[in-house]
Amino acid sequence: MTTDLRITGVRITPVAFREPALLHAAGVHDPFVLRAIVEVDTADGLVGLGETYADERHLRRLRAAADAISCADVYALGAMYRKVAEALAHDNGPDGSGLTGTIAAGSAVDRVFSPFEVACLDIQGKAAGRPVSDLLGGAVRDRVPFGACLFPKWAGHPGAEPDGWGEALDPDAIVAQAHRMIQDHGFSAIKLKGGVRHPEEEIQTVLALRDAFPGVPLRLDTDAAWSVDTSIEVARRLEGVLEYLEDPTPGLDGMAHVARETGVPLATDLCGVAFGHLAPSVERRSVAVVLADHHHWGGLHRSRLLAGICDTFGMGLSMHSHSHLGVSLAAMTHLAAATPDLPYACDTHWPWKTEEVVVPGVLSFADGAVRVPGGPGLGVELDRDALARLHEQYIVRGLRNRDGTGQPRRTGRSHEKKTSRR
Amino acid sequence: MTTDLRITGVRITPVAFREPALLHAAGVHDPFVLRAIVEVDTADGLVGLGETYADERHLRRLRAAADAISCADVYALGAMYRKVAEALAHDNGPDGSGLTGTIAAGSAVDRVFSPFEVACLDIQGKAAGRPVSDLLGGAVRDRVPFGACLFPKWAGHPGAEPDGWGEALDPDAIVAQAHRMIQDHGFSAIKLKGGVRHPEEEIQTVLALRDAFPGVPLRLDTDAAWSVDTSIEVARRLEGVLEYLEDPTPGLDGMAHVARETGVPLATDLCGVAFGHLAPSVERRSVAVVLADHHHWGGLHRSRLLAGICDTFGMGLSMHSHSHLGVSLAAMTHLAAATPDLPYACDTHWPWKTEEVVVPGVLSFADGAVRVPGGPGLGVELDRDALARLHEQYIVRGLRNRDGTGQPRRTGRSHEKKTSRR
Ligand SMILES: [Mg+2]
Ligand SMILES: [Mg+2]
Repeated sequence: MTTDLRITGVRITPVAFREPALLHAAGVHDPFVLRAIVEVDTADGLVGLGETYADERHLRRLRAAADAISCADVYALGAMYRKVAEALAHDNGPDGSGLTGTIAAGSAVDRVFSPFEVACLDIQGKAAGRPVSDLLGGAVRDRVPFGACLFPKWAGHPGAEPDGWGEALDPDAIVAQAHRMIQDHGFSAIKLKGGVRHPEEEIQTVLALRDAFPGVPLRLDTDAAWSVDTSIEVARRLEGVLEYLEDPTPGLDGMAHVARETGVPLATDLCGVAFGHLAPSVERRSVAVVLADHHHWGGLHRSRLLAGICDTFGMGLSMHSHSHLGVSLAAMTHLAAATPDLPYACDTHWPWKTEEVVVPGVLSFADGAVRVPGGPGLGVELDRDALARLHEQYIVRGLRNRDGTGQPRRTGRSHEKKTSRR
Repeated sequence: MTTDLRITGVRITPVAFREPALLHAAGVHDPFVLRAIVEVDTADGLVGLGETYADERHLRRLRAAADAISCADVYALGAMYRKVAEALAHDNGPDGSGLTGTIAAGSAVDRVFSPFEVACLDIQGKAAGRPVSDLLGGAVRDRVPFGACLFPKWAGHPGAEPDGWGEALDPDAIVAQAHRMIQDHGFSAIKLKGGVRHPEEEIQTVLALRDAFPGVPLRLDTDAAWSVDTSIEVARRLEGVLEYLEDPTPGLDGMAHVARETGVPLATDLCGVAFGHLAPSVERRSVAVVLADHHHWGGLHRSRLLAGICDTFGMGLSMHSHSHLGVSLAAMTHLAAATPDLPYACDTHWPWKTEEVVVPGVLSFADGAVRVPGGPGLGVELDRDALARLHEQYIVRGLRNRDGTGQPRRTGRSHEKKTSRR
């Protein structure tokens, strides 16, 4: 019991993995998603895993943070957070690259701290012989339900082979995509990425999904692509159909305006993505459902804080996903399992991915849910060959300027001009 | 690492310990304080400690909760909280007895869950070979500063011998009390219990303390004894003198009214004592400083949540104390050590007490601060002889109808009639 859990080193490995030509309010996803796998080494040989974004600015910050937490004990998370904040004191502007347009300014410290915190919890769990969910108050469910994330898409990336999912630009094709995804994974909730086509087409797609999957909770996420007026109109048309409407319009004031005019709950992962946004959001009553994302919100303990704040201030909680690998899915599953009030199925982009870095077997979907890993720590292990292969892909492709959040490049396909209302 | 940490039994031992004739807005403290020591046993033989109130209603609820959590794993805190809530579903009215008048209605579930959570963390820490502060994110300070809690008092309880502290009913006697307490413990902050004498006398006492201890932060707590008008008048007189004014007047609306009219920060342990009070308090801007108390707020993890909420919503955090024993002081110290933003010295009634249940040596005051216990778990051990003696005292004295919070009986000494403003 006198294990030495001081950090002796950190390895940060950027990787790239393929993604289909998914469409989004700001354009089309890149052919490759960038992520970074963080490995934290301790004096006694235990290794902890984290996963995060991998744009160059973020990688630079991760390296600064890794230097700052050297020699820290893996239990000293409060002190570590301070050290990361100090290390970024002169480099703590809004995250996300200028390429994306829609990434809200979160807390750089929270984003950088997150993978280290997850890795430290992985180590704490391994040292205590306990799953990470136990370190978060214990799992209150043994399976975590996730929902399908549908995307309008092209058949393939320009100049590349079709990806096997086919084009999906009308209601029938989206319904077909949903059928396939639910057949493969058993999801019991559906989110549609919107803000891509004309609002009327997106309403028709949601209604087609409602008819095809009666009783299945439906969500529409337009990444703040619409004006307040369009948002209100669509929300009214889809009242009683949508479980929630995600980021119809930009900014806390715009969201509050829409919220006052409709009974559809509004959710966000854009205008409330850091603790500093919560007080103004609560004051304005902008948001009914906060989409937690431990990569954004400073790790698992701070995501638990977010959950407690939502509970205390009468907001619902759901979980956001960017494109991610298995280390993140394990962390998301432990967090969701230990979150008492999580009435919504979590988002995941998992089905869109064909490459992985963790050893298969632990994480799998049955009836739309992932069983909480029962082994010590996160319960997942790196496949080092796969890690090397995806790192090589990162090197060879030279995709350094992605922001690593899986957000698409703008291609001018959006139907409404965006104006910041906050 | 395959220790069996399921709960095999719970022992609840009510105890009584002597307290001087301290005065309070509602009267004089009883000669004895009631507390309950909770011991949680696990399959592998590890035992965890908790300490809580001991009025009869609370004891009944503790026993119901102990039955409900039987066989639970000590890491399964979320599930345990649910079980306690279910066990109290038909007995979850406001806590506190009708004798006290000023006890705000907190959450019975949080009060009952708290000692079990602390005991489970004690066990988790012992199993992992780590102090409880590590389970809360790690200590960010190795010594926790506490403040002196001064009381106006009689020389002794009616019909009893003088207690050695002497009568303190005027500014000179209170200043002398402060000198003695600071000489003995080295406190670097001072709280005066007010709402007992005429407001003008209490102003004069605060000013005398200011003159006697220049630069030492001063607080005045009147337990909601004053009207809004009196509160505003006193607050204005003491602007720049008080660090904060604690519960001058009842209710969130009354406090908000006072807050608008003065620059003195208002603190509370009366009108915001449960998570359900926070949203209305934030909305009204009633409170600048929340006085956390893990006995009230559902244990150490939920107190960390409270700290995070205060940080997020721009409120300060300090720590409240009822009369307590060493198990509570250990828990308070671990919690405070692991709370990043705790800019105020914590309250403690420790110096007033002459009896104890934990083995001496670990907890002591130097320069007004307690060193964070470094051993596994809470780091304190029961003195079983002392526990038996104080339990015998509880039995013999037959003080079953105290509410166990250390709140005094009303004796009609208060100078203003209380009216609830909420
Ligand atoms: Mg979204
Ligand atoms: Mg008070």
